[in-house]
Amino acid sequence: MREIGTEELRYLARGAAILGAGGGGDPYIGRLVAERAVLEHGPVRVAEPHELPDDALVAGVGMIGAPTVMIEKLPAGDEALTAFRMLQRELGRTITHVLPIEVGGMNSLAPFPVAAALGLPVLDADCMGRAFPMVQMVVCTLDGVLAKPLAIADEKGNSIVLDVRDNHWAERLARSAAVRMGCTALLSTFPMSGKQARDITIPGTLTLAARLGRLVEQARREHADPCAAVADFLGGQVLFTGKVVDVLRSADPGFASGEARLEGFAAHDGTSCRLAFQNEHLVAYRDGAVVASVPDLICVLEAGGEPVPTERLRYGQRVTVVGAPCHPRWRTPEGLALVGPSAFGYSHEYVPLGPR
Amino acid sequence: MREIGTEELRYLARGAAILGAGGGGDPYIGRLVAERAVLEHGPVRVAEPHELPDDALVAGVGMIGAPTVMIEKLPAGDEALTAFRMLQRELGRTITHVLPIEVGGMNSLAPFPVAAALGLPVLDADCMGRAFPMVQMVVCTLDGVLAKPLAIADEKGNSIVLDVRDNHWAERLARSAAVRMGCTALLSTFPMSGKQARDITIPGTLTLAARLGRLVEQARREHADPCAAVADFLGGQVLFTGKVVDVLRSADPGFASGEARLEGFAAHDGTSCRLAFQNEHLVAYRDGAVVASVPDLICVLEAGGEPVPTERLRYGQRVTVVGAPCHPRWRTPEGLALVGPSAFGYSHEYVPLGPR
Repeated sequence: MREIGTEELRYLARGAAILGAGGGGDPYIGRLVAERAVLEHGPVRVAEPHELPDDALVAGVGMIGAPTVMIEKLPAGDEALTAFRMLQRELGRTITHVLPIEVGGMNSLAPFPVAAALGLPVLDADCMGRAFPMVQMVVCTLDGVLAKPLAIADEKGNSIVLDVRDNHWAERLARSAAVRMGCTALLSTFPMSGKQARDITIPGTLTLAARLGRLVEQARREHADPCAAVADFLGGQVLFTGKVVDVLRSADPGFASGEARLEGFAAHDGTSCRLAFQNEHLVAYRDGAVVASVPDLICVLEAGGEPVPTERLRYGQRVTVVGAPCHPRWRTPEGLALVGPSAFGYSHEYVPLGPR
Repeated sequence: MREIGTEELRYLARGAAILGAGGGGDPYIGRLVAERAVLEHGPVRVAEPHELPDDALVAGVGMIGAPTVMIEKLPAGDEALTAFRMLQRELGRTITHVLPIEVGGMNSLAPFPVAAALGLPVLDADCMGRAFPMVQMVVCTLDGVLAKPLAIADEKGNSIVLDVRDNHWAERLARSAAVRMGCTALLSTFPMSGKQARDITIPGTLTLAARLGRLVEQARREHADPCAAVADFLGGQVLFTGKVVDVLRSADPGFASGEARLEGFAAHDGTSCRLAFQNEHLVAYRDGAVVASVPDLICVLEAGGEPVPTERLRYGQRVTVVGAPCHPRWRTPEGLALVGPSAFGYSHEYVPLGPR
């Protein structure tokens, strides 16, 4: 079983933040928390879903809330472990594998402090293949795996266990709890058997993220364009290159919601771009027309290929917007019903994105 | 050990709604839920706190949320039992006595479905000696007994267990959960030993409420003034008699908050009265001056002595406002800090109320 140490965590954090499509938390904070755990307890083993025995007990870990707050109200570091232990206590069985619920700069790394402290392997998989803003937006919902029980912990010593009727209620009740806890908290949920995790989760996304993180470094070394390299690697395209000229943030305490406006440098980019986001980028408009939309990935990168999470967007940044196809599961009718434009209140038709 | 059957429930509901000071839930709904349980399982035994063995395990039960909603979104009836069982499971021990957390038309009766279904006695006591709107506003907070764990259940099948750092956090997190659950829910918390319950709770308040409920009936039979009889019985005074000419309800989803304006019939009543409420009546102003204030009881009664909860206040009602002294515990400096005017954002000085 391969291991992830501090060096690979750097690549993983960067790559996961790119795949997080603007969301999934800050890669720097995610890396610091994971690094501390690995330095204290040693490297973390990574298990592939196909290796899972049927009777393994897998549970997910992740952050919930507004990443805009997380970059100011830092996590204490042990919230995920607290939530995980509460979930285990509720289940009355020992959890054998820790699963990142989504891919993201913070959320791909959130399992590491838990796995390191308890000596458990992290599963090389997740439940989205990217990041989405809400609890129910996971392949688990499509396959009938419930966020039940769901444990949440904050940095102040409060913790909660929810026992909800469905994953939409998990979102409602976990969100309001997270808002009250100060707009961010860590949760643990989606307990599933080894067989379920094998059948349901999206495999290989930790490895994919780490490869993507390395690729950026390599492109830089080779004086290639890291943003174009990312677009190629993901089978997507560069949608826009320009400067952030406005960022509007809404007052919704549960999410990092808002819009960013960009102006182009070059004529072939079109003259303007608008990004609507709710933790993750939801829609990219070029000169007023939709050019990419959830569930496809819209990723904002600095020229050097470093991902810019939506909470870090600010006036004057020079960025490249990359669009990339989502996991095929999200392009099915039931996938689109759960995470497509209409799930976010948009009326536009989803047009699958591919290479240019 | 004496028992309470359906007949006494009627008196208890009325008397508890009077002592609830406008809050504590609707006595009619409270009675219906308790009656159904008693008709199904038989009368409920009542234990006096002084009879409690040291090693008894007592836990409280009550409603949380906006009573304005509870009179439209009726409880399913088994929420309190669900919450109680979850609390018991968390504690890992069998609870022996059910305690009303507060006195109120709904909340004095909320323990009955639990006690009837499980064959447990209800404790003739509560944690306020009246009703207050928030979780931390209990004598338990003064004596270091925590709302921990705290279990909440709604009528939709959702339930939550909170493990909080203090009773103020219990209020914050339970309130936001209750709001998300549809503005009302039932909770169970304040687990304590028999010794703690003996030392801490306010004894005899079920019996007091039932006596008060009977007294109203007796005054009517004797063609006496039931409102004056209530004021005398409680050692208080009639503050105002008049007609409701305006009710302003705020949009706060967690509480029944607002103000009522009354105009007097007779010159000696003063010409106008204003009542500020948050579930319970907080302050009574007569001609602009404070004449009664939390933590003292402000009770609104119809001419026949039936209590009018704040959620039932409406234009045109002819009512009598009675003020009565609160439990002496609330008149201490620490009691006033927790439930006095300043705890609700008022700057007026608390002046203890007695007979006129």
